[in-house]
Amino acid sequence: MLCVFCQIVAGKIPADKVLETPDMIAFLDIKPINLGHTLLIPKPHYENLFDLPDKLLKEMAGTLKKVAKIVKEVTRADGINLAMNNLPAAGQLVPHAHFHIIPRFANDGYVHWKGKNVAPHELKEMAEKMRRPHE
Amino acid sequence: MLCVFCQIVAGKIPADKVLETPDMIAFLDIKPINLGHTLLIPKPHYENLFDLPDKLLKEMAGTLKKVAKIVKEVTRADGINLAMNNLPAAGQLVPHAHFHIIPRFANDGYVHWKGKNVAPHELKEMAEKMRRPHE
Repeated sequence: MLCVFCQIVAGKIPADKVLETPDMIAFLDIKPINLGHTLLIPKPHYENLFDLPDKLLKEMAGTLKKVAKIVKEVTRADGINLAMNNLPAAGQLVPHAHFHIIPRFANDGYVHWKGKNVAPHELKEMAEKMRRPHE
Repeated sequence: MLCVFCQIVAGKIPADKVLETPDMIAFLDIKPINLGHTLLIPKPHYENLFDLPDKLLKEMAGTLKKVAKIVKEVTRADGINLAMNNLPAAGQLVPHAHFHIIPRFANDGYVHWKGKNVAPHELKEMAEKMRRPHE
């Protein structure tokens, strides 16, 4: 059983396509934050950022910008959010890597997450751990 | 007066750096969604996605993945959100292009925006407009 996005790629489930390249499809989210909310996916099945090959990821970045310009122009949005949720704890609902391109309007009611206050030493210690060599 | 991120690049404001390349810096957000929340910025001042050169954007995509792996490994996160807010209506607070790399944990209390129900014809009409050739 193919995943729902693989079925869209295979043409087995219809989608409102915005753009297609040899390696990617962009189509409208059927439950948009605002109308014009678009998803950009790779055609091959990769689950998330971590298993997307670098070459394809870089190509997707260029296409993301192209799609974001189209979304902004056509919806006349005041701003654009790009988002990629990786793994269920981050809100990923379909386990096929996808970027969200979301048109935003002044005072459209979506409130951003508030950050936490943390102590300077917590930041310092965390950055030290993160600077250690990693594979 | 340099923007706050340009001042970090210039070493005039301290930051908890995670990684540096000739063109980019990654450092910890001082008001993190969860500790380990990292920002990746280009060293030159570009305001948002729309004025980032494609070549630099693609390089940033590769580095984003590298930083996301470090964040996930060090924080032992269950998931990672990537986000880029472009223009104030999308929640962009500092007008210097930046990606958020956010560690997420099961049941950490951050709720995702709910999408709207829209009629199939609204999606179809929007996709048709978006498929028309754009510059």
